[in-house]
Amino acid sequence: MRKPTSKSAKPRKPARVANTPRLGDLIVERIERLAAITDEPGKLTRLYLGPAHKTATDLVGRWMQDAGMTVRLDATGSVVGRYAGATNDAPVLILGSHIDTVRDAGAYDGNLGVLTAIAVVEQFHAARRRFPFAVEVVAFGDEEGVRFANTLGGSRALAGRFEPRLLDETDRDGITRRAALTAFGCDVAKIADEARDPANVVGYLEVHIEQGPVLEAERRAVGVVTGIAGASRGRITLTGNGGHAGTVPMGLRTDALTCAAEIILAIERITRADAAALVATVGVVEIADAAVNAVPRSVSFTVDLRSPSDDTRAVALAALQGEARRIAAARGVSCDIVFTYDAPAATSDQHLVAALSRAAAKCGHDVRLMASGAGHDAMSFRDVIPFAMLFVRCRGGISHHPAEFATADDIDAAAQVLRACVEDLAGK
Amino acid sequence: MRKPTSKSAKPRKPARVANTPRLGDLIVERIERLAAITDEPGKLTRLYLGPAHKTATDLVGRWMQDAGMTVRLDATGSVVGRYAGATNDAPVLILGSHIDTVRDAGAYDGNLGVLTAIAVVEQFHAARRRFPFAVEVVAFGDEEGVRFANTLGGSRALAGRFEPRLLDETDRDGITRRAALTAFGCDVAKIADEARDPANVVGYLEVHIEQGPVLEAERRAVGVVTGIAGASRGRITLTGNGGHAGTVPMGLRTDALTCAAEIILAIERITRADAAALVATVGVVEIADAAVNAVPRSVSFTVDLRSPSDDTRAVALAALQGEARRIAAARGVSCDIVFTYDAPAATSDQHLVAALSRAAAKCGHDVRLMASGAGHDAMSFRDVIPFAMLFVRCRGGISHHPAEFATADDIDAAAQVLRACVEDLAGK
Repeated sequence: MRKPTSKSAKPRKPARVANTPRLGDLIVERIERLAAITDEPGKLTRLYLGPAHKTATDLVGRWMQDAGMTVRLDATGSVVGRYAGATNDAPVLILGSHIDTVRDAGAYDGNLGVLTAIAVVEQFHAARRRFPFAVEVVAFGDEEGVRFANTLGGSRALAGRFEPRLLDETDRDGITRRAALTAFGCDVAKIADEARDPANVVGYLEVHIEQGPVLEAERRAVGVVTGIAGASRGRITLTGNGGHAGTVPMGLRTDALTCAAEIILAIERITRADAAALVATVGVVEIADAAVNAVPRSVSFTVDLRSPSDDTRAVALAALQGEARRIAAARGVSCDIVFTYDAPAATSDQHLVAALSRAAAKCGHDVRLMASGAGHDAMSFRDVIPFAMLFVRCRGGISHHPAEFATADDIDAAAQVLRACVEDLAGK
Repeated sequence: MRKPTSKSAKPRKPARVANTPRLGDLIVERIERLAAITDEPGKLTRLYLGPAHKTATDLVGRWMQDAGMTVRLDATGSVVGRYAGATNDAPVLILGSHIDTVRDAGAYDGNLGVLTAIAVVEQFHAARRRFPFAVEVVAFGDEEGVRFANTLGGSRALAGRFEPRLLDETDRDGITRRAALTAFGCDVAKIADEARDPANVVGYLEVHIEQGPVLEAERRAVGVVTGIAGASRGRITLTGNGGHAGTVPMGLRTDALTCAAEIILAIERITRADAAALVATVGVVEIADAAVNAVPRSVSFTVDLRSPSDDTRAVALAALQGEARRIAAARGVSCDIVFTYDAPAATSDQHLVAALSRAAAKCGHDVRLMASGAGHDAMSFRDVIPFAMLFVRCRGGISHHPAEFATADDIDAAAQVLRACVEDLAGK
């Protein structure tokens, strides 16, 4: 992390929030307005580069302007608001999150972080404060990975990690990422130009709901994220012999589903045995030609394995593959294992973690350091741009669901910590 | 079983098969022609009251007519061919099986029995033979239970066991059985009229592939079925808490899928422990809102349990329900168990078993008596109409699969035994 060296800026027009100390209610009001912008009436579904994303982009851009920022749509469809620093050559502190959603989503995931950042900047603007760095708020649009197989296109571009092959990916309607970006008003030829010079970036800070139950269980409003778990994703396919449910004696069966059940329990056992934050999930199970009265011949299931430690994850991955092969062999079932996705763990920048921790302490919070099991745009900045994240308690650990919820009080707490952290980084 | 008392009938027009002693090749040729009639190009799928079923019904009806039978479509969509007896008031011997299939089926299941019966009658017709009973060949259409939850509607109607509530059942497109029957050209108001007077029925004989590995293992072409296993079918639905695959620590999860896996293994264990021919199958598993990166909140799966002993089955059913509830409770997952289908074991008529055994011995077979683990239309006749079945060896015990196969020689053997059995029953 670079230390900014200068400060102060000319005051601009007064802003709405004036010196209101409390930001939670404003942020919640905007979260609710954004949540009404959807591709599917009756539920919140805002897919990358879709019509609701376009409408949301315009609204977020207006709020950024109200907060004293100059606004542009970048080459991957992110909205970028810039609150100038004290000097023209000041480095930049990036705040952000995303405004795309999963299908039938909650209102807080992503949107909360963007709107909190805007509200904090708006308050600085109202108070006519300038820092020795510019503050940019980025509303990414490609975090959830619902429309295209790959994701984080916006943050990858900022990190200089956008691979041009992604432009050829197609959604389920056969529309390429390239065509979708162009229709959205983006110039795909300029994606490479979005890469930030790390020497000119103070860091990236993201506020996000926890999406898990830990803060709630511990009765804390916020937590500081020390890193984002690495993840492996794969599929295990088992093939035995099918048969009629009535006519094949138990002793002559090689049932692919009972084999899968034994492997699913082994994965759970291996994962539970690890003392660290290792988690494994089998989320999809498909039985070929499933029928009530047929012994399953072939079963395929997904495995999602995550750990803040890449070593722990590698050991667990090897163990679960070994157990799967052993169990299948003992049952006379063939076992095919393919792991196609491997995202290394991304560690937060220790100086930014320290700054967030100081800010949290200043705001009266007992600092809780925690890993993120979910992926975030911050991951794209791994080893390139320093990052840290602030988690906000959410009800029941629920996310990716309409019941997703965080209180205005907790959101306000996050906004105060983010504001204090910006001030801390500015040396104020 | 009633004993017919009179014989002989006026000869009618000559038939195609003349006095060809061998019927296996003709039956195989027709099996192949029927197998081309499908709802899904490239595979054999012929669901009850679907378009392929209609086409197959017409073709089977023409073959019945060629065999000297008068043909009608009954009120449940069965094709009924009647080969008159020596007198108008003669009782009826019913031969039959079914022409519906599972999805991506083999060609022999059901169809073999219908076509064998037609070929045998065709040969009687060619030889101008009449018996002291009419011979009816019935091609049922609702044996596999793929389209509607309940099954055997055709044979239940003949047995006077068709429950009117079945008309309100819906398929996965929401079409009721009533609407499907009406569209097929059936008058549902006349289903009750299909009930046969047991006093007027000699019995029901069905030829069917074994669908299991026993006859092949013992190098026998045919076996005589002493009874059909009773069956229970139900569904277990588990509901825990969902969550993001990355953010919920293993210790805080109530994963409905790992709970299901433990129950599926318990069902396997309970069933294997029984020394008798108890079998249990979980054939369908459904995860609500399944996603690679979501902990399964709700999982539902089917259970199919069968035994030739109703007592054994009752004990196993209680045990598996107890284990399911215990496992779910230990995991904090709610468990809903619904068993909607309970078919008692059905014992073959001893006189018909004896007649089939004499016929088999006459044709040179060492008689093999065996139970059927699979359900068949014959079950509907339990305690109402005497029945027996003749099983035909099939390759690898495979059924409900395109690889299903029986040789023309074995099929011919079955046809000869069926013919000899009809003659035996006629006292000839």
